[in-house]
Amino acid sequence: MSATGAATATMECRILTGGVALVEFSQAHEQNPFSRARMRELTGLMLEIDRDPAVGCVVLYGGPGRSFGAGGDFHEVSEFSGGDEVDAWIDDITALYSTLAGISKPVIAAIDGFAIGVGLQIALCCDLRIGSIAATLVMPEFRVGIACNFGGYMLETVVGRSVMQEMLYTCAEWPAERALADRLLHEVTQPADLLECALRHGRRIAGYTPAAVRSTRARVNGPYVEGLRRVCEEGKRSHRAAFSAGEAQQRMRRIIGKA
Amino acid sequence: MSATGAATATMECRILTGGVALVEFSQAHEQNPFSRARMRELTGLMLEIDRDPAVGCVVLYGGPGRSFGAGGDFHEVSEFSGGDEVDAWIDDITALYSTLAGISKPVIAAIDGFAIGVGLQIALCCDLRIGSIAATLVMPEFRVGIACNFGGYMLETVVGRSVMQEMLYTCAEWPAERALADRLLHEVTQPADLLECALRHGRRIAGYTPAAVRSTRARVNGPYVEGLRRVCEEGKRSHRAAFSAGEAQQRMRRIIGKA
Amino acid sequence: MSATGAATATMECRILTGGVALVEFSQAHEQNPFSRARMRELTGLMLEIDRDPAVGCVVLYGGPGRSFGAGGDFHEVSEFSGGDEVDAWIDDITALYSTLAGISKPVIAAIDGFAIGVGLQIALCCDLRIGSIAATLVMPEFRVGIACNFGGYMLETVVGRSVMQEMLYTCAEWPAERALADRLLHEVTQPADLLECALRHGRRIAGYTPAAVRSTRARVNGPYVEGLRRVCEEGKRSHRAAFSAGEAQQRMRRIIGKA
Repeated sequence: MSATGAATATMECRILTGGVALVEFSQAHEQNPFSRARMRELTGLMLEIDRDPAVGCVVLYGGPGRSFGAGGDFHEVSEFSGGDEVDAWIDDITALYSTLAGISKPVIAAIDGFAIGVGLQIALCCDLRIGSIAATLVMPEFRVGIACNFGGYMLETVVGRSVMQEMLYTCAEWPAERALADRLLHEVTQPADLLECALRHGRRIAGYTPAAVRSTRARVNGPYVEGLRRVCEEGKRSHRAAFSAGEAQQRMRRIIGKA
Repeated sequence: MSATGAATATMECRILTGGVALVEFSQAHEQNPFSRARMRELTGLMLEIDRDPAVGCVVLYGGPGRSFGAGGDFHEVSEFSGGDEVDAWIDDITALYSTLAGISKPVIAAIDGFAIGVGLQIALCCDLRIGSIAATLVMPEFRVGIACNFGGYMLETVVGRSVMQEMLYTCAEWPAERALADRLLHEVTQPADLLECALRHGRRIAGYTPAAVRSTRARVNGPYVEGLRRVCEEGKRSHRAAFSAGEAQQRMRRIIGKA
Repeated sequence: MSATGAATATMECRILTGGVALVEFSQAHEQNPFSRARMRELTGLMLEIDRDPAVGCVVLYGGPGRSFGAGGDFHEVSEFSGGDEVDAWIDDITALYSTLAGISKPVIAAIDGFAIGVGLQIALCCDLRIGSIAATLVMPEFRVGIACNFGGYMLETVVGRSVMQEMLYTCAEWPAERALADRLLHEVTQPADLLECALRHGRRIAGYTPAAVRSTRARVNGPYVEGLRRVCEEGKRSHRAAFSAGEAQQRMRRIIGKA
């Protein structure tokens, strides 16, 4: 297994005692945007970890003092014109989400700072979401001018239709306490305790009988993964329509200071 | 476009600056019961608004100091005998709900006073539900003696099975604060601030890139509308059975003082 | 009708004034484990009650000072080897759950003490769940080493995916107040008031027009029962895999003091 235990391009993976694989998104910009290359890297890493018999549970972490994931890479997405590049991007996104939810081992998100758009969607594919009191969750697609098919599907499935409606149509920031009340987060800790709390959950889960956990996870996540694949095709149509309008690219360029 | 900007029989529609259409149910009894004719009127008005390129979002409002909607019209329904008139009534109901959820533009409910039965169900087809502290939500079908297929489906889908069970089997009144905690409402305001709060949400939504919002709403609401159409057929059977029993009509006549 | 009004092997049923059938699990160990024989007994009793025209609602109760139901019978399950006996056990479980959710009359769970595993799953098939402040809800399958397909499906459907994830992956105890906040319980009372509170709900429901309640319950519970039947087949595969691993039996024998 080459990637785990070694630094890869934009994240690193360490296998800890107790059967927990810690994946840290620490080799990138501190806000942790997810480019297409980076999504593919995480997909590949998860598949490798799934094959490693020493691992019983995975913890995803943005690194100390860093955001969990601040959405897609606007430098990349702001160049989209509504054609085939949209489909390729959605295919990468779908592969990542369905791999996170589809592998045999539970995955825990340890969220500090921002979890925005793609970052929040990665967390919504996880089995437990632990946040620090400094965590802020946002689904800002409409404000940016892009469609929100995956976000809509995932929020409705994980925390219910009503919370989904408010996150999509207001684009507001959900601070940690509100995210806990709305069950976007399962537990909230002090920032200094975040990683250890997530690892403690990970070690307990890694200690369960693997056959029990894996056969159950496959059933519990099966309909979710099927739904993601359905959204993939609808998402391509929605995003092509939205990017063809051209407003999203202008809004993104303003945000990253290119216009 | 004839209806918007002009008073219609039992409601009026004004197109406001900022791209918001304000539909006010103000030309009727202050409790705003929904007869079949009135449901058809609202369905037609929503389809007209959907075609108006000046509108980006719709706000539904019962009018100052008036209920959002106090259920079906008991004068009409208490004459039902469990035959074809039940099917025609369910067809009007289904057309209204699937139009509200199925048009391309988001719809906001501004709820003061009562939202009961059909009134609450109209709100459950909306994308945001803003209530005043004087709002009271009730799904009283069992107490009245009629079936609650739409209410059961909509509550389970929007706020979850557990809240649905309690609303259906207790027929209790949900005051605004409890409705907020159970996510039946997204926000609660003072009565004097209700309309402006809903309009503020409406203006923000009307300012989003239309292609992004519309392609997303179609996906997010698609399964909901499909479900409404499925419930339509089951609802006809349930309501025919319940109205054939005859108890509902007696209970309604007592409520409206006819018996 | 032979069983109602008479003591049966491990539970008794009394038809009370007001149309409520009170089923008390009082003729067994005070923690109320559910063996296969006992599950079949409850299934048969529910089918009998459903045919009794004097009954409009059922209340399930563990008996004064006793647990509602502390899971499967470990003496029985710890002898499983992952073969046909697993399928027979899952068939009994499925028959019980789909009967509780599938009969024409509403069922209320009055929960004191523990509702664990199968006990909690019985409650999740009910229409209202009333708990005492001494109630404790647990889905401990992973800690015991067995799969949790029914628990995963039922929790996700009744209280949402997020609460399901936390109950399954932490195996923690949910005390009454937390269970109320997460809508696992609809109401919490003092232990001395529990039974009367549940019976009061039962009498109110039994007073509704039967045709309205029954036609609605069939629709509201139909998809839930279909889901249970789907989980049945997946559950057999999951449980065979987990029991073949052999760890669950060892863990159970330790819990019941046989190893």
